[in-house]
Amino acid sequence: MAMFDELVEAFCCLPGVGKKSAQRMSLHLLERDREGAKRLADTIDKAMRKIGHCASCRNFTEHELCHICQNPKRDAGTICVVETPADVLAIENSASFSGRYFVLMGHLSPLDGLGPKELGLDILSAKIAIGKILEIILATNTTIEGEVTAEYIRELARPHAIKVSRIAYGVPLDGELGYVDQGTISHALADRKAY
Amino acid sequence: MAMFDELVEAFCCLPGVGKKSAQRMSLHLLERDREGAKRLADTIDKAMRKIGHCASCRNFTEHELCHICQNPKRDAGTICVVETPADVLAIENSASFSGRYFVLMGHLSPLDGLGPKELGLDILSAKIAIGKILEIILATNTTIEGEVTAEYIRELARPHAIKVSRIAYGVPLDGELGYVDQGTISHALADRKAY
Repeated sequence: MAMFDELVEAFCCLPGVGKKSAQRMSLHLLERDREGAKRLADTIDKAMRKIGHCASCRNFTEHELCHICQNPKRDAGTICVVETPADVLAIENSASFSGRYFVLMGHLSPLDGLGPKELGLDILSAKIAIGKILEIILATNTTIEGEVTAEYIRELARPHAIKVSRIAYGVPLDGELGYVDQGTISHALADRKAY
Repeated sequence: MAMFDELVEAFCCLPGVGKKSAQRMSLHLLERDREGAKRLADTIDKAMRKIGHCASCRNFTEHELCHICQNPKRDAGTICVVETPADVLAIENSASFSGRYFVLMGHLSPLDGLGPKELGLDILSAKIAIGKILEIILATNTTIEGEVTAEYIRELARPHAIKVSRIAYGVPLDGELGYVDQGTISHALADRKAY
């Protein structure tokens, strides 16, 4: 295989990148940005070798503890449990949470070999046992697996004096009702509040 | 800067990739495809070091001559002149051309320092002088620079017994008139054929 085709194929491992986009990327780098390409190759290589999981919250970091767990200003008494690092980025972008996270890196899915241990729930149990957590906010997805995972964690916390909450689900603030899915509308109606 | 953010920023050098997609790519590789990531990094690095230009047609290749110029079945008497390697890929995908190419890697643009020499027109002149080219098909873009470049090459060929043609421009076969731009429609009308 010609090296150009190898390059195109290698780019196809990226999500959302098909053959056409991979060709465009390959040509762009070769024609216009060999320096950026070198930097990209070096950075991918370094990131894959160095980035592991935070010992406290399991999010990605190249350090022992991620920058959120290292930050003394973040409230260690409030833990938001999410499925993926992307969820952490989304919540951080909203700038509306000052606690810490616990990243499951998935959800309970016994068929895929993902049990409590794979999700680090033994680490979470140990944190709960120490007794410094006041509230656990569950922000797992509303899929069946996400709900089951949330329930499992609620049960973990039950024997302890810990408040457990689930983030609110409903019609998004920029959502026009005509474009919102039926499940969301059913949930929003059932979960209505006095006004 | 955290290594994850460095990775996201490095991906932003790719065309069509903004911060959101770069995050998605970074997370995907870290979570699910570290092997693909390693291969991507190695392939980019190797490609940037090894891929240069074909000595005959100037297209990208890691060899002295590209696979098309090396192929004895490709008609060396017919040369299709294009602006970029992407144009070669598009024509090759149509499987309707069995000649060879000459890739300008741009168009005449004196303000950007792109003169005849930068486009390799000295190499094309030498090819013309040898006398083995029977037809030059001009497939440069229909921008002003592309047209000027086409005219320049037509003048280069004029003293020699070489047929010079320009590919047909008009309404694309899958084009509904309502969605085709005005310039194309004007050209298609002016260039109409007896039927």
